[in-house]
Amino acid sequence: MTGMAVQDALARLMKPRSVAVVGASADPSKLTGRPIAYLQRHGFDGAIWPVNPRAAEIGGLRCYPRIADLPGAPDAAIVLLGAGQAVGAVAELSAIGTGAAIVLAGGFGEAGADGAARQQALREAAGRTRLLGPNTIGVVNLADGVVLSATGALELHELPVGGISLVSQSGGILGSVLSRAAARGVGFARLVATGNEADLDVADLLAHLASDPATRVIALYLEGLRRPEAFRDAARAAAAAGKPVVAFKIGRSEAGTRAAISHTGAMAGTDRIYDAFLRACGVIRAERFADLIDIPAALAAGRRARGRRVAVLTSTGGAGALLADAAGIAGLDLPPPDAATSARIAAPLGVAPEEMAGNPVDVTLAGVKPEVFQAAIAALLDSADHDALAVVVGSSALANPDLAADALAAAQRDAVKPLIAYVSPHAPQILAALNRRGVPAFDQPEACAAALSALAAAPAGAPPAARDPGTLPPGALQSGTLPSGTLPSGTLDEAESQALFARFGVPVVEGAAIRTPEEAEAAALRLAGPEGRVVLKVRDRRIAHKSDVGGVRLGVPAGAVAAEAGALLARVAAQAGFAPAGLLVQRMAPPGAELILGLRREGAFGTALLIGFGGVATEIFGDTALRMLPVGQAEVRELLAGLRGAPLLAGHRGAPPADMAALTDAILAFASMGEALGPRLVEAEINPLFAGPQGVAAADGLVVLAGDAAG
Amino acid sequence: MTGMAVQDALARLMKPRSVAVVGASADPSKLTGRPIAYLQRHGFDGAIWPVNPRAAEIGGLRCYPRIADLPGAPDAAIVLLGAGQAVGAVAELSAIGTGAAIVLAGGFGEAGADGAARQQALREAAGRTRLLGPNTIGVVNLADGVVLSATGALELHELPVGGISLVSQSGGILGSVLSRAAARGVGFARLVATGNEADLDVADLLAHLASDPATRVIALYLEGLRRPEAFRDAARAAAAAGKPVVAFKIGRSEAGTRAAISHTGAMAGTDRIYDAFLRACGVIRAERFADLIDIPAALAAGRRARGRRVAVLTSTGGAGALLADAAGIAGLDLPPPDAATSARIAAPLGVAPEEMAGNPVDVTLAGVKPEVFQAAIAALLDSADHDALAVVVGSSALANPDLAADALAAAQRDAVKPLIAYVSPHAPQILAALNRRGVPAFDQPEACAAALSALAAAPAGAPPAARDPGTLPPGALQSGTLPSGTLPSGTLDEAESQALFARFGVPVVEGAAIRTPEEAEAAALRLAGPEGRVVLKVRDRRIAHKSDVGGVRLGVPAGAVAAEAGALLARVAAQAGFAPAGLLVQRMAPPGAELILGLRREGAFGTALLIGFGGVATEIFGDTALRMLPVGQAEVRELLAGLRGAPLLAGHRGAPPADMAALTDAILAFASMGEALGPRLVEAEINPLFAGPQGVAAADGLVVLAGDAAG
Repeated sequence: MTGMAVQDALARLMKPRSVAVVGASADPSKLTGRPIAYLQRHGFDGAIWPVNPRAAEIGGLRCYPRIADLPGAPDAAIVLLGAGQAVGAVAELSAIGTGAAIVLAGGFGEAGADGAARQQALREAAGRTRLLGPNTIGVVNLADGVVLSATGALELHELPVGGISLVSQSGGILGSVLSRAAARGVGFARLVATGNEADLDVADLLAHLASDPATRVIALYLEGLRRPEAFRDAARAAAAAGKPVVAFKIGRSEAGTRAAISHTGAMAGTDRIYDAFLRACGVIRAERFADLIDIPAALAAGRRARGRRVAVLTSTGGAGALLADAAGIAGLDLPPPDAATSARIAAPLGVAPEEMAGNPVDVTLAGVKPEVFQAAIAALLDSADHDALAVVVGSSALANPDLAADALAAAQRDAVKPLIAYVSPHAPQILAALNRRGVPAFDQPEACAAALSALAAAPAGAPPAARDPGTLPPGALQSGTLPSGTLPSGTLDEAESQALFARFGVPVVEGAAIRTPEEAEAAALRLAGPEGRVVLKVRDRRIAHKSDVGGVRLGVPAGAVAAEAGALLARVAAQAGFAPAGLLVQRMAPPGAELILGLRREGAFGTALLIGFGGVATEIFGDTALRMLPVGQAEVRELLAGLRGAPLLAGHRGAPPADMAALTDAILAFASMGEALGPRLVEAEINPLFAGPQGVAAADGLVVLAGDAAG
Repeated sequence: MTGMAVQDALARLMKPRSVAVVGASADPSKLTGRPIAYLQRHGFDGAIWPVNPRAAEIGGLRCYPRIADLPGAPDAAIVLLGAGQAVGAVAELSAIGTGAAIVLAGGFGEAGADGAARQQALREAAGRTRLLGPNTIGVVNLADGVVLSATGALELHELPVGGISLVSQSGGILGSVLSRAAARGVGFARLVATGNEADLDVADLLAHLASDPATRVIALYLEGLRRPEAFRDAARAAAAAGKPVVAFKIGRSEAGTRAAISHTGAMAGTDRIYDAFLRACGVIRAERFADLIDIPAALAAGRRARGRRVAVLTSTGGAGALLADAAGIAGLDLPPPDAATSARIAAPLGVAPEEMAGNPVDVTLAGVKPEVFQAAIAALLDSADHDALAVVVGSSALANPDLAADALAAAQRDAVKPLIAYVSPHAPQILAALNRRGVPAFDQPEACAAALSALAAAPAGAPPAARDPGTLPPGALQSGTLPSGTLPSGTLDEAESQALFARFGVPVVEGAAIRTPEEAEAAALRLAGPEGRVVLKVRDRRIAHKSDVGGVRLGVPAGAVAAEAGALLARVAAQAGFAPAGLLVQRMAPPGAELILGLRREGAFGTALLIGFGGVATEIFGDTALRMLPVGQAEVRELLAGLRGAPLLAGHRGAPPADMAALTDAILAFASMGEALGPRLVEAEINPLFAGPQGVAAADGLVVLAGDAAG
């Protein structure tokens, strides 16, 4: 599209000086009557231009019969017409120079082939005007009092303003999040539903919010990404601006993926790739739907934890234990307070410090003495042994809700560490009061645990744009330095694959590509000596699974290689139906743990790196980790340590430990191949890579390259 | 204790004709003023006898100065005094023949050594009177309007009556569950907090509720079980009465376990054992705290699903996709409706059946036409392709909450299948209205998924009391037939262990226990023939880890056994510092997948059976399953199929598949050993058990027996 600059249009859309409401009704109870009522109610101070040929005035405003009659080019327009009429209206809006148009109607891309054609017509009608939607619920900009929406969620609730902004690919979910958050006192700056994303998409909105001064935390409800690269750039901008991004994405199950695709025609992609991609973008992934409110609410308080050590303070033992258990399951640590902290808590209670030496710290004895509670909060916020504090609000607070809220809000004001509250009884008014006063408060123990985990995660730094060439292992080619013209295309044979690995600095088992049995024996004697043994493998691009055609022999004595090689070639020729191109003679692989490394191009998401252990570990237990390139040394180390099979590298059952530095270098070299080849690399696999005490070596591998055109 | 029969006392406690309120205050705003106010407010129609030397009348009732002055023996008493005075009061209550006394005060078993002594004094003071507590919040019997509690949760909410009863080991949690459930319209019959369980415990209450006509579903909040056998019996009684039991248990993390123990001194035990034990008791385990309300609420509607096929009906696409995704993650199936059902839904909408052929079924087009929605609900409840229906209530319902509730409640009345609702916007009034009208309604997609999973679980049948002897594999001894006097005690050596396995019908690798190298060679020639090979193992009760002292040799040629055996004995003697008792000569093990079987006595929980695959599968990946004995054939098959390593038995990578019937029989035979030996068996392990195409054989094993006294 050749529309106006996206960010300029978004600026006009989010804070317009003038808004055209096309198809406005004078009846505010109708859906088409809502937007003007909402604009007025939420204090929009710009010009509102209703367009309706059958009304002279709406809500005290002059109504224009046609778009062409408007007194100027509106910054934003909200189109309330049905799908059929909307296309014409958008063309007219474009003709007068409208900045951006919101089309609420469904019946476009989500509605079969006819709808897709109508959506294409809508795009064309928009011309230089940018489009939000169609099939959207619009924009709710609470920070500036600009509501361009017809969602019923705006009907019923007080809407607190806060530092969280939401972009949702579903309008219904936007309404759900807004109403739920409002009920618990969690405030939003802006909420935008992108609907069918015929033009403006979640990546555009993310980029807008990254530089939006009213937005401190960004929440995303995703069904699928249409432009992963643009999304990644926008996520980088958000990270650079110090704004955490939290995403809830459906499509984690087959049923959900189908539903997401049919809902707004979102782009498919396996959830595992999305997971790796969002991680690479520095996005925190929300697991439960409620987390999409809870985690941003915790982050919006502005304090991050330096570690995972949490203190739980309670005046009701049962709920304290429940919260501690949920935190423990989430991998948080609950160390006891040190002696000085225990003493400080115990003193006003008149009990021995030992009675306050546990975690949860249980001050049930305090009854409803607020000064004791406050002193305990202060002591635990000062404790050097804890990175965050979670306080249980029990049923004693019901009788005097302000007491708990006052104590927590006062403590929160001066706190450096995160302080959150778990409200044990049903007490929505206490929950909302705490959230409104800046104390993130939750009514589920699992929500507290998720929030504390997010607070303890490393603050979003800018994810690496590309790997620092200085971190490449010796021998690896640098990104962009590849003479791609010299690469073959299609499926490489074993020897070619090994040669390519070696070219990027991956250590490979020494071998020789030969054609005849006689050459094989000569090579074997050279590689292993007359007393040694070698591995024989058939070498032919047409044969991907060598073992299946009897094309592999291990431990062949060097002196018997000619005979074995001849038998192998005959066997493969009989099985495959053609004479293979030749053989690969390899040294026997060194002892060590067996790993699998894989690279796979995942379209616009980039190239994924897979690491796992060989044999049953990967085949049966699926113990693999997936990351998007680029990866750095620290990430590779962390990734290896995170595999369940990690003990296999540390010297399992008396085996010597593997050379971890060599293994990390080999993985980085393999990854550098993926970076350098970019879209030329369809897939590559090393299976197995032996990792032993004396280093590592790729023993077998496969590479599939795309033709030059893809480069 | 020699108190009165527990169930008689509980019947008096739960529905008393007279209640003494000891330490009652005339000020209803005080904690000690609440119980009489609550009794009166909730319509208790028996006699209330306040006891307070400083008041003549409380709440219009005559107040008695001392317990001895009461006009009779109360069925129940609630003691509102502090820990010190409570002991004396309970003694006086016992003296006049009180049925059961509730002691609210803390400061007993949960409060160190002094508290434990005071708790013991309290028990002794109670005599024939049964005790609830101390450190409890009491009894809330909504079905009969008998409230013997001081919980603040009773202060603030309307409390709907329903078919769920709760037993909680934490009083605070009881208040939390009660207030949360009430706010969402979920009704309870009875709620009891057992506190420190000095006398009456969760097992007693579970047994009471199993035969309570007002209770249809039982919810449990557990910190630990003091009497697992009694709990199991009570759970069986509930299952026999057709009442599902749902338990949320903390102690799933180390921090939570510590907190639970310090809270009420609950019995420790690993969560894995609890998990196996609760499963063996037929108890549904709730994963999230909210599930403890949500799953019982779904079950209380009285309909169970015959399978896991769920239809989702929505009028808001985004929330439908969200719900479908959560259901898919929980392992539910979402098949599309058949052509007839699609046509039935499409007809009133005037669209092609193909547009209603997905799942979720999205009737957004219907707008707010209730008749279309109702027709779709009816069609999906009739669909042969679905076992349950989940309906999304969107924001359009906010404008007219009754509409959705009416349609769903009407459909629910006639439904055979479960029907549940997911309420997408914040709409507590709709949620509560639906629940009150018998339609289980939830505000989290994950809650819907958990509820649907529970509805699809096999209805609780009575768990097996003991295995049917007819199902024992041939050769296995039957439970109770063991001549235990003939058993050794302590750690058995390899040969003794193998002999014991064989005695119970577990196939073992054939072998011979001998003493000298010469005997070994003779045995080897007999077992394997002159050309065969054997395994040599040291045999001595003092040597648990044979490999560590060089005590195992595999593949020894029969003719070389004498020499190898001599060397082995010398090596072990040098390593161990004593001459070993002898050798075990075994045939070479047959080829097959390697499994590990274990039995372990877990105190009063019974004996646990562990099954896993050998090597890295168990050591690294922890791919093991744990069940409490007894287990049946179907359970063993299901358990094997549920292991991630199951493909290893089906013929992984070209290996022939294992003889599953022989494997199942061997596991049942091993389990029968655990059943027959009962507490005599401390632990037993077979590692490895080879499972191949020609059958199975235990190749190595260990048994530890307790002395006769434990039998």
